Amino acid sequence: MPLKALALNATLKSSTSQENSSTDAMIELIARQLKDYGIETDVLRLADYNIKPGVTSDEGEGDEWPEIRTKVLDADILIMGTPIWMGQPSSVCKRALERMDAFLEEKDDQGRMVSYGTVAAVAVVGNEDGAHHVSAEVYQALNDVGFTIPANAVAYWVGEAMGSINFVDLRQVPDVVTESVAMLARNTAHLARLLSENQYPGDR
Amino acid sequence: MPLKALALNATLKSSTSQENSSTDAMIELIARQLKDYGIETDVLRLADYNIKPGVTSDEGEGDEWPEIRTKVLDADILIMGTPIWMGQPSSVCKRALERMDAFLEEKDDQGRMVSYGTVAAVAVVGNEDGAHHVSAEVYQALNDVGFTIPANAVAYWVGEAMGSINFVDLRQVPDVVTESVAMLARNTAHLARLLSENQYPGDR
Amino acid sequence: MPLKALALNATLKSSTSQENSSTDAMIELIARQLKDYGIETDVLRLADYNIKPGVTSDEGEGDEWPEIRTKVLDADILIMGTPIWMGQPSSVCKRALERMDAFLEEKDDQGRMVSYGTVAAVAVVGNEDGAHHVSAEVYQALNDVGFTIPANAVAYWVGEAMGSINFVDLRQVPDVVTESVAMLARNTAHLARLLSENQYPGDR
Amino acid sequence: MPLKALALNATLKSSTSQENSSTDAMIELIARQLKDYGIETDVLRLADYNIKPGVTSDEGEGDEWPEIRTKVLDADILIMGTPIWMGQPSSVCKRALERMDAFLEEKDDQGRMVSYGTVAAVAVVGNEDGAHHVSAEVYQALNDVGFTIPANAVAYWVGEAMGSINFVDLRQVPDVVTESVAMLARNTAHLARLLSENQYPGDR
Repeated sequence: MPLKALALNATLKSSTSQENSSTDAMIELIARQLKDYGIETDVLRLADYNIKPGVTSDEGEGDEWPEIRTKVLDADILIMGTPIWMGQPSSVCKRALERMDAFLEEKDDQGRMVSYGTVAAVAVVGNEDGAHHVSAEVYQALNDVGFTIPANAVAYWVGEAMGSINFVDLRQVPDVVTESVAMLARNTAHLARLLSENQYPGDR
Repeated sequence: MPLKALALNATLKSSTSQENSSTDAMIELIARQLKDYGIETDVLRLADYNIKPGVTSDEGEGDEWPEIRTKVLDADILIMGTPIWMGQPSSVCKRALERMDAFLEEKDDQGRMVSYGTVAAVAVVGNEDGAHHVSAEVYQALNDVGFTIPANAVAYWVGEAMGSINFVDLRQVPDVVTESVAMLARNTAHLARLLSENQYPGDR
Repeated sequence: MPLKALALNATLKSSTSQENSSTDAMIELIARQLKDYGIETDVLRLADYNIKPGVTSDEGEGDEWPEIRTKVLDADILIMGTPIWMGQPSSVCKRALERMDAFLEEKDDQGRMVSYGTVAAVAVVGNEDGAHHVSAEVYQALNDVGFTIPANAVAYWVGEAMGSINFVDLRQVPDVVTESVAMLARNTAHLARLLSENQYPGDR
Repeated sequence: MPLKALALNATLKSSTSQENSSTDAMIELIARQLKDYGIETDVLRLADYNIKPGVTSDEGEGDEWPEIRTKVLDADILIMGTPIWMGQPSSVCKRALERMDAFLEEKDDQGRMVSYGTVAAVAVVGNEDGAHHVSAEVYQALNDVGFTIPANAVAYWVGEAMGSINFVDLRQVPDVVTESVAMLARNTAHLARLLSENQYPGDR
């Protein structure tokens, strides 16, 4: 059975803004590589949804997280894509992570969180500085709620200190980015395949 | 002229939830101490407002950040109060910080950001673990956009590892918390007074 | 073939100090659980070695990192154990991480870093606060240099805010710690087994 | 009385290596600006000293921290200069911060830590990415032990993502760096002057 990837784009801009998202551009590079491994990537822009603040899986009327949650749990690979603001993940990214906090209590009859077996990777872009820290924050949050992190699980680009160029406006994708995207896709696909065929054991 | 403090409560819960906010409880302790220095604290719960995602000072129709921004700039002291979720500041806190990113470009005729001269402190509460990191994230974000951080600028409480007690439900405020709140208020009031009478020089 | 684990204890105290190390106590709990999966854990106290500052694999005369490096690369599982100081990993932990920065350039003929296939987990203890952030820092650093992070890869204990009790002095290990140690060992053993039999593919 | 600044260079390289330190280059820029405010900067390369691991002010025989500590406490301004390794402060930087943890217990008869009144700023350089996070870590650690952080307290440079150019090898210092160094020096000098004439009040 083919594996499925879900990419969450945590840009602050909704699709209606018509602005190009650098985060989308990075996600697109990853999706293209995953395709070589027979993996389709569903991309979802978080700012298009009403994701209510909270740490449960359903925050009531108007909350559109439940449908996103279903897709997250249905995927074999989760790509969390986020821009850098103030050297940190976006508030939209943090909002989604908080909603996954509920997984801590959502376990199967073997004591495994519902997210077990899903592999997570990170896509980060910014005008400048912050990618390593953003990946640290996202790795830790996602790992706490049951995701597995393959080797070299981040693809990123940032410009020189205090720069203002957007990734989406670069004339050419730098080779180092292309290579790290390929590495991320290769490792993520490999580990997701292994875990899809060999789920973590439970506690009983 | 008396100094003014503004406390932003970044709990995920709006006031209509009727739930007690531990963050509010910590802010209240600080406000009481600041009062001893003749400083009134205005408390504002961010989740009660429609703060649109973005990094400008006005994100258009329906955006309620502009009125909060006015209060931030009108204050001599900013208390950023946030709960800990996943060891990190809340998404509501990050949202407000992102909106202050606009200060980077909002300067007076001396080249000083509009926030210069304002002193910032942090109030953090959680069931467990994360206060130091939360203060690190908030210090850096606020300092980047022009705020000054007095000595020992954080008041926090968290329970033992993987605990589930809320600060607001403690039978008694621990002495170490009371002392650090007093220290925070003393230092914050002192530095805010100094800066209110001696603004940073500009670049011309 | 049985899998092997290596635990690096990054306490600031050398063995000659005769002081009990809380980090050791946590590592011991993990080692006991790994044993149930047929995995022996070699424990090494970093402060007993002269690990020179630098980012290469051999910093010359007197440098004792090379022998530690050999053990790291020989292991299927790496447990990085560190105390929390100032809410952050110890300087001894950071020193060891920096030396692994060299792995970025140390690749096999398939373009894979020498660390590929090794699974990493984290053990963190402190009097209070900081475990989540410590795990974030260690996850990111180790993942950048090729390690894989299984689901729920941290075992930690910290006391209440501003507390001063040591983990090693607790009369009883809290149940939540015992459970998370069991989960960590189960997941780590499972993923290390999978990867030892199915190494990541290379780039050619 | 003229103010005094102390800059700690936390590069991994000792002076005997004869290699140029990018951290030194950034510190030099700051020192030159501070001179315009009549402030002399003493620069000290931490890797030249035997700073023993620990969290007390004197770790016994051979420990050279005590003489550095004296200079730290004698200064009105502390510049912590550090390279970025793995997106984080250097182990040499962390080692010095840990030794200042002792300040938590070293108070005068007014209950003020020995570091009160000293203003701290940060200088960060790296081939790429990590400056914001490094400043976050250093701000928080130094603030916890009594230092005050002026507005815009970091001067940094990093290259484009995954770059390898050193700051010290740039043909020209970018204007944005020059401007931020000037801003840092102006604010640091101003706040250090204010606090040297108006020490924080104590608790009795």
